[in-house]
Amino acid sequence: MSDEKPKEWRTAITSNQDGKILIRGYNLDNLIGNKSYADVCFLLLKGEMPNQAEAKMLDAILVSSIDAGIAPPSAVAARTIFSGGNSLNAAVAGGILTLGDAHGGAIEKAAKLFQDELKGKDVKNINIGETAKKIVDDALKNKKRLAGYGHKLHSIDPRTTRLLTVAKSLNFGGAYVELAVAIAEEFKNKKPEQKLPLNVDGAIGAIMSDMGLDYRLGKGLFIIARSAGLVGQVFEEWLREKPFRRLRSDLHEYDGVPERPLPQD
Amino acid sequence: MSDEKPKEWRTAITSNQDGKILIRGYNLDNLIGNKSYADVCFLLLKGEMPNQAEAKMLDAILVSSIDAGIAPPSAVAARTIFSGGNSLNAAVAGGILTLGDAHGGAIEKAAKLFQDELKGKDVKNINIGETAKKIVDDALKNKKRLAGYGHKLHSIDPRTTRLLTVAKSLNFGGAYVELAVAIAEEFKNKKPEQKLPLNVDGAIGAIMSDMGLDYRLGKGLFIIARSAGLVGQVFEEWLREKPFRRLRSDLHEYDGVPERPLPQD
Amino acid sequence: MSDEKPKEWRTAITSNQDGKILIRGYNLDNLIGNKSYADVCFLLLKGEMPNQAEAKMLDAILVSSIDAGIAPPSAVAARTIFSGGNSLNAAVAGGILTLGDAHGGAIEKAAKLFQDELKGKDVKNINIGETAKKIVDDALKNKKRLAGYGHKLHSIDPRTTRLLTVAKSLNFGGAYVELAVAIAEEFKNKKPEQKLPLNVDGAIGAIMSDMGLDYRLGKGLFIIARSAGLVGQVFEEWLREKPFRRLRSDLHEYDGVPERPLPQD
Amino acid sequence: MSDEKPKEWRTAITSNQDGKILIRGYNLDNLIGNKSYADVCFLLLKGEMPNQAEAKMLDAILVSSIDAGIAPPSAVAARTIFSGGNSLNAAVAGGILTLGDAHGGAIEKAAKLFQDELKGKDVKNINIGETAKKIVDDALKNKKRLAGYGHKLHSIDPRTTRLLTVAKSLNFGGAYVELAVAIAEEFKNKKPEQKLPLNVDGAIGAIMSDMGLDYRLGKGLFIIARSAGLVGQVFEEWLREKPFRRLRSDLHEYDGVPERPLPQD
Repeated sequence: MSDEKPKEWRTAITSNQDGKILIRGYNLDNLIGNKSYADVCFLLLKGEMPNQAEAKMLDAILVSSIDAGIAPPSAVAARTIFSGGNSLNAAVAGGILTLGDAHGGAIEKAAKLFQDELKGKDVKNINIGETAKKIVDDALKNKKRLAGYGHKLHSIDPRTTRLLTVAKSLNFGGAYVELAVAIAEEFKNKKPEQKLPLNVDGAIGAIMSDMGLDYRLGKGLFIIARSAGLVGQVFEEWLREKPFRRLRSDLHEYDGVPERPLPQD
Repeated sequence: MSDEKPKEWRTAITSNQDGKILIRGYNLDNLIGNKSYADVCFLLLKGEMPNQAEAKMLDAILVSSIDAGIAPPSAVAARTIFSGGNSLNAAVAGGILTLGDAHGGAIEKAAKLFQDELKGKDVKNINIGETAKKIVDDALKNKKRLAGYGHKLHSIDPRTTRLLTVAKSLNFGGAYVELAVAIAEEFKNKKPEQKLPLNVDGAIGAIMSDMGLDYRLGKGLFIIARSAGLVGQVFEEWLREKPFRRLRSDLHEYDGVPERPLPQD
Repeated sequence: MSDEKPKEWRTAITSNQDGKILIRGYNLDNLIGNKSYADVCFLLLKGEMPNQAEAKMLDAILVSSIDAGIAPPSAVAARTIFSGGNSLNAAVAGGILTLGDAHGGAIEKAAKLFQDELKGKDVKNINIGETAKKIVDDALKNKKRLAGYGHKLHSIDPRTTRLLTVAKSLNFGGAYVELAVAIAEEFKNKKPEQKLPLNVDGAIGAIMSDMGLDYRLGKGLFIIARSAGLVGQVFEEWLREKPFRRLRSDLHEYDGVPERPLPQD
Repeated sequence: MSDEKPKEWRTAITSNQDGKILIRGYNLDNLIGNKSYADVCFLLLKGEMPNQAEAKMLDAILVSSIDAGIAPPSAVAARTIFSGGNSLNAAVAGGILTLGDAHGGAIEKAAKLFQDELKGKDVKNINIGETAKKIVDDALKNKKRLAGYGHKLHSIDPRTTRLLTVAKSLNFGGAYVELAVAIAEEFKNKKPEQKLPLNVDGAIGAIMSDMGLDYRLGKGLFIIARSAGLVGQVFEEWLREKPFRRLRSDLHEYDGVPERPLPQD
């Protein structure tokens, strides 16, 4: 650091000089063997070591999203890319590339919803129930679908219940988890037929907010977690399958114009 | 499962049906909150739960590779892609895409070297010292560079020493770690001037081999670990930098043919 | 085609059955050797063959964007990925991945601006000058920057002038090119000091609109064009450079917290 | 250019300075409107303008590979990535990422086979028939499959015949095309039952070799060509489909261990 203007490439995360690596100021050597991967993820993303409950909750989040089988688009894309004759890292990259707005994107959106409401406020003096009521009324009035509520596949996602139970048992959680749960309650009271329970994305969005993590890291947590699942899926493709997955002929169709002659110039 | 031929998309890793997710047969709900991310990574990749020493060693490996600063190609590519106006998942995917043969690839190569030598053999009856001698003699004779030995940046990589110390303190490690260390000893004896210590890639390659993990997972472990570093690097780019990183003009040059007129047809 | 519901994978672009490939109904065999790549790109994207002026203008667009040297983020990312020890296709993919909102994205935005204004309207009865005035007044009033106007590097982009000259010589162009030029004129009259000429993205956005191409294809045209430049850049990296581009040490810095001891639990 | 050592980022392809872009020394402004995209691709990749036959042959190659429908892995991966909620450029990048060794990779391998045999030799004094005989005998003896011969889907690929017809009509082609055809003849004579005709990859590999293009550009030509098809496929996905393609439940299965209780520590 000097009077000069900052270099074009600068980072406050990791220093790597003369064979010594510091993560947020801590010597990597001291972290190896003393701290878990979840501890160091937290440190790296937030800048400080987690307390015990935070570390356990981050582990719970990462475990909850580690894999969801072969059917999601990310697994299909990763395996398809590998089957084109590519390397494991290229295929896993393709899986992570698939994790866009519609695939794990609700974590970020739910966390943003919560943080837009509470961030920087004195949560001790906020009536969470009233806040939830206001959010739900607004959503219903404007027919807005709230990220983090409802689920395509499961009417109740067991991962949500489990994450909240773990949080409770660790005495983890503050205003964000409270708000997330209150919104679901409010939906249940006002529109029971719509089935809009807090889903796993909403639960993670609330928990990460109570960890003090910026909502823009929502997708990041999902990527970190799912990287292992994608490595596993691609490794299995490598071991068990032949190259070149082509869509089976009965699964696709051409519905464009029929054959026609070239126009004469 | 039936008499029918297997479906085109099949997996033995994760079952996801009717709202219940099983990882290698274990209900995800039981894993969340009870097992660490490293535990479940091990389970997912190997098919069985790790014992305590294995779990701690996998945590140590993941922590050792979590980030190495802004200078490696993967961080540069990830940030550059983000600066083109792309999403976090696209940029992290680009970082993982960068992790090719020359970037973390030595783990796989070192593990392959070790596993080609010992896999399936009765290691109790193998003289590890003799085996190491044979490998080193062969490498020196054929001027072959062995993956896992030597390092561009650090003459001694502190991460290697640390990983081996942790392994020792956990009483972890078998024939593979023994062989990896013996090879380095042999290099030191025969060619001290070449500086070919066991590096971090070689150490991880040996440790994962003693975990019973296939060498083809070497890059996979690195990807899982580094996914967090790349998320952090891209998040920092998002927070701190403006879009469109263009190479500074003094860093590049054109050295092709000078301007010339179009040839006349 | 039948009474059944459509298959999940359906396309109206290309039929490929029993060894016969049809592009929008035309036998690929008749296209090969009779039609140029630009002809068939147009056909593929729009569904019909271009007339001669359209074909020549598409060629001009593709040529104008084929490469812009080694400094843009896409070339840097592609070469960096290759230098990690990856394949040519992986590296080129990384280059295309870089082409986000901030890198070639202005074509789509400019085309959207023009199409939002004129699409579906009877352009014969629209006063283009008045429309341009309205757009510019609105932009100045709301301090909105319009995509397609102004340029970081060049005060006048010669490619823009050239594309418009070619269009004129071919007697190509209708209401969209007229509107695009009129907006630039209006900016020049009202805010000469701001230097907001039509740039190459704006010119392409207008020309593609006069071709009847949907604005969402703006980035697509750029990708098709630049794919050749990226192949060239990566091929050159392959021939001339060593693996593992690491940022030179004087180009980066760590500006985070200094070294500190691990907190005691 | 000076006495200094070369800059780390250097290119002989494109100069871009002070608003002037030169491709291989030719002002881009002169290329726009005067040269076709195929002309400038050739120039960019080889360093010199093509003659008329070369330009037409490159157009023929690019057209032949522009798209092959929705079923190939690259189209499936690109659409699947888009359906995850990603941008067009990310999805097209995923498609190009898919174009690995098993997907268009035979062009490069076939061109390498031909160039390894003839490159740098005085082809006037080589007996092509004898060379073909030697190659085929060697392949049959060692049960080696030669890239560029045989095809999964089509017993005769009409694109091959068409490309060779176009070449003939242009009087294009030299020793490489001659060798490629002679090898197919030899296979037909010696092993008619194996059906190993020259396929489209082999034809392109031979034609590009006669253009003087390095075999390592084989995949590159395919990428350039297919970029348009992928843009079209992704654009169609954008217009016609909903997000989140999940594998239909009857298309996948779990075949791992059944549910089991967590082991007690």
